[in-house]
Amino acid sequence: MNFPSNIFNSHPKQDGDFFLGVTDILGFKPKRLEIYKKAFLHRSVNRKDKKGNPMNYERLEFLGDSMLGTIISRYLYNEVPEGDEGYLTKMRSKIVSREHLNELGKDLNLIKLVESRIPKTHFGDNIHGNVFEALVGAIYLDRGYKYCEKFIYDRVIGPYVDIEQLEGKVISYKSLIIEWCQKQKKSFNYNVYEDTGKDELKHFAVKLSIGNKVVAKARATSKKKAEERASKRAFFALQDRIG
Amino acid sequence: MNFPSNIFNSHPKQDGDFFLGVTDILGFKPKRLEIYKKAFLHRSVNRKDKKGNPMNYERLEFLGDSMLGTIISRYLYNEVPEGDEGYLTKMRSKIVSREHLNELGKDLNLIKLVESRIPKTHFGDNIHGNVFEALVGAIYLDRGYKYCEKFIYDRVIGPYVDIEQLEGKVISYKSLIIEWCQKQKKSFNYNVYEDTGKDELKHFAVKLSIGNKVVAKARATSKKKAEERASKRAFFALQDRIG
Repeated sequence: MNFPSNIFNSHPKQDGDFFLGVTDILGFKPKRLEIYKKAFLHRSVNRKDKKGNPMNYERLEFLGDSMLGTIISRYLYNEVPEGDEGYLTKMRSKIVSREHLNELGKDLNLIKLVESRIPKTHFGDNIHGNVFEALVGAIYLDRGYKYCEKFIYDRVIGPYVDIEQLEGKVISYKSLIIEWCQKQKKSFNYNVYEDTGKDELKHFAVKLSIGNKVVAKARATSKKKAEERASKRAFFALQDRIG
Repeated sequence: MNFPSNIFNSHPKQDGDFFLGVTDILGFKPKRLEIYKKAFLHRSVNRKDKKGNPMNYERLEFLGDSMLGTIISRYLYNEVPEGDEGYLTKMRSKIVSREHLNELGKDLNLIKLVESRIPKTHFGDNIHGNVFEALVGAIYLDRGYKYCEKFIYDRVIGPYVDIEQLEGKVISYKSLIIEWCQKQKKSFNYNVYEDTGKDELKHFAVKLSIGNKVVAKARATSKKKAEERASKRAFFALQDRIG
């Protein structure tokens, strides 16, 4: 545990846990922990600041949503020099779609840090994406633009954004594998399990079996990504027979 | 003229003029002038880059629109701690409204730098706001987040954003003056003229006369602002009689 031990002098035990949890997710140290506390505070807790203003993650979500859009916009601007503004807008919507952000927030297991009066099992899917946006807002306020950009590159663009896939130019390898198995009347199984190991970030491993034989393995930060990776490997391994 | 004279060695004369024009608008020196050239390039010119991609300001507009929204979001987050995310969203829309951006772009006289095949008199109002957004995008690419923030504070938030006025808590002083004059059957006249003087930015001066007497003068970066300022002065000068 690589942080000054005096953190325990100024904060109670649970703050130390929270600090570690946030540092794990961010990949760098937070400076003003209270901002991140707000990013994980659900309105059901009904907390107010000294001036009587409600404290919860909704205002940070507003801020993070905007910053996330800006950094994705810049990424797309550089990455797709041939795309016009209509294309860029469409791609940005795909990347920051509610569904996509919920998946991201879920993979980062943000919910474990959420403070709420509602049992966490009662939440719908949107809480994952909302807290993810609030977290981006908190980083923006705490560490500024550069750290926000780093976080979004490390946690969103790197592991999730594949422009060709978003464009639909690359077909899903998983769908190719399933199609082939069905045609060949072969059984198949994607065996997915959590395998975080020593990574600071949650990881999933998958073993893809066709018939009774494991044909490919893969590991990634989301189930979908791990399955797709294993499928791609299987596809190239089986290429002669599939093609 | 406070820039290295060797700029004239590497650029033809019109680049020097463009450099000066952009520096005036920005309030700081551009680094990569070619990015700003793009920000003022209308699609009608039909220029393409080496790879055959169309060159005009529309992609930069996409980028600038997003960055502008983010910086205004952060400003509002800090400025209005009691506003919930719905309120913040509403206020942001008011500030970055098409009408408002067009006014901004017009006051900065951005159109004078626009390169186009269409006569400038044929453009509608939206070109002013669009080029303004593109310019923000260009600053973002050329100088990064901090300069964008500075530009938006200097050119948008400082001179234009008055939260109380946007909220409608403060009534327009101009409308109070007009109402009073009409009630009193007095003639009034707002005499507005350009008075940029030594400022790097375009300025307007206004003389407000009631009856035949000049009752207030004011100067600002927009006609509206100058009129409002003069009205406020007149209002307080005439307070005993109006109130």
